[in-house]
Amino acid sequence: MATLARAEELQSPDKQFTLSVNLTPDGAPTYSLVYKGKPVLKTSQLGLELKNTPSLTNGFVQTSAVRKSIDESWNPVWGEVKTIRNHYNELAVTLTQPATKRVMLVRFRLFDDGLGFRYEFPRQPELGYFVVKEEKTQFALAGDHKAFWLPGDYDTQEYSTVTSNLSQVRGLMKQSVTDNASQHTFSPTGVQTPLMLKRPDGVYINIHEAALIDYSTLSLDLDDQNFILNAHLTPDAEGNKGNLQTPSTSPWRTVIVSDRAGAILESKMVLNLNEPTKYKDTSWIKPVKYVGVWWEMITGKSSWSYTDMENIKLDSIDYSKVKPNGTHAANTAHVKEYIDFAAQHKLDAVLVEGWNTGWEDWFGKHKEYVFDFVTPYPDFDIEELNRYAHAKGVNIIMHHETSGSSRNYERFMEPAYQLMNKYGYNAVKSGYVGDILPLGEYHYGQWMNNHYLYAITEAAKHRIMVNAHEAVRPTGLARTYPNLIGNEAARGTEYEAFGGNNADHTTILPFTRLIGGPMDYTPGIFQTRISAYNPKNTSFVHSTLARQLALYVTMYSPLQMAADLPETYNKFLDAFQFIEDVPVDWDDTHVLEAEPGDYITIARKGKGTGNWFVGSTCDEQGRTSTIKFDFLKPGKKYEATIYADGKGAHYETNPQAYAIRKLTVTSKSKLSQYCAPGGGYAISVVEK
Amino acid sequence: MATLARAEELQSPDKQFTLSVNLTPDGAPTYSLVYKGKPVLKTSQLGLELKNTPSLTNGFVQTSAVRKSIDESWNPVWGEVKTIRNHYNELAVTLTQPATKRVMLVRFRLFDDGLGFRYEFPRQPELGYFVVKEEKTQFALAGDHKAFWLPGDYDTQEYSTVTSNLSQVRGLMKQSVTDNASQHTFSPTGVQTPLMLKRPDGVYINIHEAALIDYSTLSLDLDDQNFILNAHLTPDAEGNKGNLQTPSTSPWRTVIVSDRAGAILESKMVLNLNEPTKYKDTSWIKPVKYVGVWWEMITGKSSWSYTDMENIKLDSIDYSKVKPNGTHAANTAHVKEYIDFAAQHKLDAVLVEGWNTGWEDWFGKHKEYVFDFVTPYPDFDIEELNRYAHAKGVNIIMHHETSGSSRNYERFMEPAYQLMNKYGYNAVKSGYVGDILPLGEYHYGQWMNNHYLYAITEAAKHRIMVNAHEAVRPTGLARTYPNLIGNEAARGTEYEAFGGNNADHTTILPFTRLIGGPMDYTPGIFQTRISAYNPKNTSFVHSTLARQLALYVTMYSPLQMAADLPETYNKFLDAFQFIEDVPVDWDDTHVLEAEPGDYITIARKGKGTGNWFVGSTCDEQGRTSTIKFDFLKPGKKYEATIYADGKGAHYETNPQAYAIRKLTVTSKSKLSQYCAPGGGYAISVVEK
Repeated sequence: MATLARAEELQSPDKQFTLSVNLTPDGAPTYSLVYKGKPVLKTSQLGLELKNTPSLTNGFVQTSAVRKSIDESWNPVWGEVKTIRNHYNELAVTLTQPATKRVMLVRFRLFDDGLGFRYEFPRQPELGYFVVKEEKTQFALAGDHKAFWLPGDYDTQEYSTVTSNLSQVRGLMKQSVTDNASQHTFSPTGVQTPLMLKRPDGVYINIHEAALIDYSTLSLDLDDQNFILNAHLTPDAEGNKGNLQTPSTSPWRTVIVSDRAGAILESKMVLNLNEPTKYKDTSWIKPVKYVGVWWEMITGKSSWSYTDMENIKLDSIDYSKVKPNGTHAANTAHVKEYIDFAAQHKLDAVLVEGWNTGWEDWFGKHKEYVFDFVTPYPDFDIEELNRYAHAKGVNIIMHHETSGSSRNYERFMEPAYQLMNKYGYNAVKSGYVGDILPLGEYHYGQWMNNHYLYAITEAAKHRIMVNAHEAVRPTGLARTYPNLIGNEAARGTEYEAFGGNNADHTTILPFTRLIGGPMDYTPGIFQTRISAYNPKNTSFVHSTLARQLALYVTMYSPLQMAADLPETYNKFLDAFQFIEDVPVDWDDTHVLEAEPGDYITIARKGKGTGNWFVGSTCDEQGRTSTIKFDFLKPGKKYEATIYADGKGAHYETNPQAYAIRKLTVTSKSKLSQYCAPGGGYAISVVEK
Repeated sequence: MATLARAEELQSPDKQFTLSVNLTPDGAPTYSLVYKGKPVLKTSQLGLELKNTPSLTNGFVQTSAVRKSIDESWNPVWGEVKTIRNHYNELAVTLTQPATKRVMLVRFRLFDDGLGFRYEFPRQPELGYFVVKEEKTQFALAGDHKAFWLPGDYDTQEYSTVTSNLSQVRGLMKQSVTDNASQHTFSPTGVQTPLMLKRPDGVYINIHEAALIDYSTLSLDLDDQNFILNAHLTPDAEGNKGNLQTPSTSPWRTVIVSDRAGAILESKMVLNLNEPTKYKDTSWIKPVKYVGVWWEMITGKSSWSYTDMENIKLDSIDYSKVKPNGTHAANTAHVKEYIDFAAQHKLDAVLVEGWNTGWEDWFGKHKEYVFDFVTPYPDFDIEELNRYAHAKGVNIIMHHETSGSSRNYERFMEPAYQLMNKYGYNAVKSGYVGDILPLGEYHYGQWMNNHYLYAITEAAKHRIMVNAHEAVRPTGLARTYPNLIGNEAARGTEYEAFGGNNADHTTILPFTRLIGGPMDYTPGIFQTRISAYNPKNTSFVHSTLARQLALYVTMYSPLQMAADLPETYNKFLDAFQFIEDVPVDWDDTHVLEAEPGDYITIARKGKGTGNWFVGSTCDEQGRTSTIKFDFLKPGKKYEATIYADGKGAHYETNPQAYAIRKLTVTSKSKLSQYCAPGGGYAISVVEK
């Protein structure tokens, strides 16, 4: 049966990548990856350390190596492009451990944009149930690369991205771990995925995972002597890293590589490594542009809570008898103002947070029965508001803050979804702020990953779309479960009211967090001084107004919020016109220029139209962006409306200076456009 | 505000008990208890150690002491007596901790049968949410008492009771910890409650808890130098002992005391310390006598599972295509035989285990999706069987084995209860065999205690009665939630097929496990040699046949199984007549004689009748029981049918020797009745 150890090689369809798979003399599987003749990954370990049983790390012989090639196309339910090509060469290596009579398979798929591989554990007599102590996958880099990294953490990705060489990670770790509502770092050199890297010679490498199902989340623990990234999974309450049963597979480990930064953004490898959708009918899944009763609470102008009490118990409080605090935003009259604004500007929906009882006392207390998801505050008329909204062609987006109390949420899930069906809600924003209950479990462990997916699949039974905040970062699962229409899992715009995001934040996120899937970043803040809403809040948005428009294009999402207040938008209706016009679903996407940490300029073609929209964001330096319109249909004339930074614009000192101009463009046009420090521009390009 | 520390005294209504409550010079609260002039509990600590905040153990001043007396009666929905008297003097001591501005109250209730006390944490500014590191309650005994104890364990009470002096606990611990499907001992001197003690002077002491709600389960850690029992709570996955929010209370700590053993059995203190039922309509709650498709699997004669596969996944197996193993008991034809038998003998119901898919691979694997609770095996026609049963006036009892996978059960709970409603099931036996998922939580922690109660209250919404096995042992909660009609939480009859119970087991259980509430002990095994059903099984029931009848009286439960197989009962129909006749609900109860570990003889009056039923169980020594019939109505004649051990009967060598005789008795009659070793007798006393 056994064959001698030998190297297997695989090339990508375009031959630019070569993968080598080998066994060491003691039967430990390894792999390495070469791109354009230079090593991307040097010899790197594969395997898993198991608990109470011999590990799947060595003692293997290779018993088969099966190759195949796939070139096919598919159409996502929503996305950046109409059609996605799935083109790869595959090598599936079966490894047998003679001493234990166990078999593990490693399946490699080599695309023109990089490598995906996963472990597969077939059904077999000697391997039924097993516990993972640690996954021993390595990514052995060729040297000390520049990295765009977040501190490794089992509970949050809401950190500012740090840009440094890998050799500097250890020294920068302590200052990079900023406070969060729930956090658990694990190593002085631990970092998260998606991890964006740049080699000194200009090759870009992105490491992440795809199809994270029934497995714990991958982080990377850096060996900063050898520049090896070691897989580090999120533990459960007992410190184990996974409870698996054959047949099963690990998620795919992904390595996207290119010498062009834009190609990293254009890669569809993570989606291609996920399964096609399981839903037979997806007609109820629709991209959404929305406003929300939200930013006014984030800034401190108003409150989620109806009263100001502390230490309440939901089962013993009578809200009809308590004194309102007078700052509760989610009241019927006020929500109607948002509905009116949404209807007037053809937005799809209004998110309302703080509609349900419990917000007086919901955070940081490890309180299990923290919300009930079915009881509105007395000043929120759920029936009337839905009637009013639907009469105007607007939906209300439900909000479920779980406070991390997972069992409580699951207990209320069915009645909560039924309530949504009753009143015609078709989407919910869920939240997981704070430590997970049961204590000992983490946001990114297998237990909670199963919960998030349960919430999505149960929602689908009710034709409900899910936008989960503080859940695990996406891994392309929205291909399979396209009602997962949004995720947070990174520092979003809310942090602009909590001290601010770095001015280059939006030049990095598409290379990191967005590699796994869309983010509900909530752009569109026109009043960038938070003190205008709450004099006590000295934070400001680290962006010009013009760049806020650009984000609707650069930060791809089928769910886009216009996050500022209607009262502010009404003062800048000429600029708001872009938000009104910009689609949330696309037929085509071109990355026109990009460099992580510096700038991103993207053009996208609106779904089912001939119109294009361009967005550009840059860092705190400012720059002049030069683009060609060669993505336009040749011979056709378009009216371009350019929303640009105005004279003297600056994200800190003069953010609201913007200028709008129109010009006619064709596929031969070029544009040289100044972007202010922390600025950017947006262009609508409409067929004449 | 503060007063000086001073002693408070409280007497029981009958003046036999005196409680003293004191503060040490450093403000630590203590209590002591005297019974008939002798100390039951010497000066014993009170308080709780908290996490990350000063403890509630000392630094107190007493700020009030409120007394009241209650003498009232109430009628249980089901029970041993028709009316229960609740008669106590109360002392509520408010303790203030000036340094922290926090208040804790200790409420003592002194009954004629002993003491109950609990901690109360009022709503207050300086104590909202808090984490219990350990409860510091002590029970400082007066010396080295005889104890009937189980090894302290966070997961199981399925141990043989050890009878020894407290000073011998440490030496006996190791051999006393026998294997269990899930177990976690915590100390070489840890023991469980209810703990039964006997002082050298013949005073009996029972320590337990009442109203265990939203709190973790109490065990006792013995200081065997000083004979102090220290409270030891069950931890959560992080090692904490409780997550509390004011206002809240601890469960009651109960100390039942008498110089008559029978008075311990008659005590209703645990019920009195629970709240009246919260249910407005209890008409759907009815005591149940049942047979079941169960013992044949326990003995190994047949199987729960339909096939013999290993390592299966419920979401990918097609049972219609697998090969049946031919030993599956819960098949339609066979269940009908049980239904026929139940109908013929006027039993209320038939329990059917192994009706749902998954039994091939359900145990010990920490498998989350282990059962679905709604999918019958292909050979179990759920609709037809319920139709057939109901047509004969019989109910089928649903079975939900969770395998400890609590989240999976909660996810399926609503559809499972709906399925029961659809087919007319009115009761469910649930099971929690194996380690709790999520791992790190224990059977007896606050997390699972909340789960068990959730299952009960959700069942009540569906008018479903619950009989929970391997759940936490009862603490009188059935008063408040009377659809909790049964519990296991001890070594039941099943262990007679797993090596056997001690012959004195049933002379102890009423003094220990049953103090908290009824047990589904599943008596009635007539074929005491397990090998008769399964030649490979050498176990035998450590009881004579006659004593099996007695247990229907001595082991009070509103839910009583006739656990043996109809084919066996059909061979002993004269003896089975007692099971057919014996009620499962009572208007009155007299303990005629009792000594823990030696014998118990009880007489009970059938609900709404003038008929009495007597049961007597004795240990491996055998004895002659002498009883008076003075509980009968004077002047009335009764026909007594005595089911006694036959000549030469012995639990091991001759268990099936029994003799039935009839005689006429009045309130003046006496009876001297021999009980064989491991034997006993049962008497029906029917009005003429």
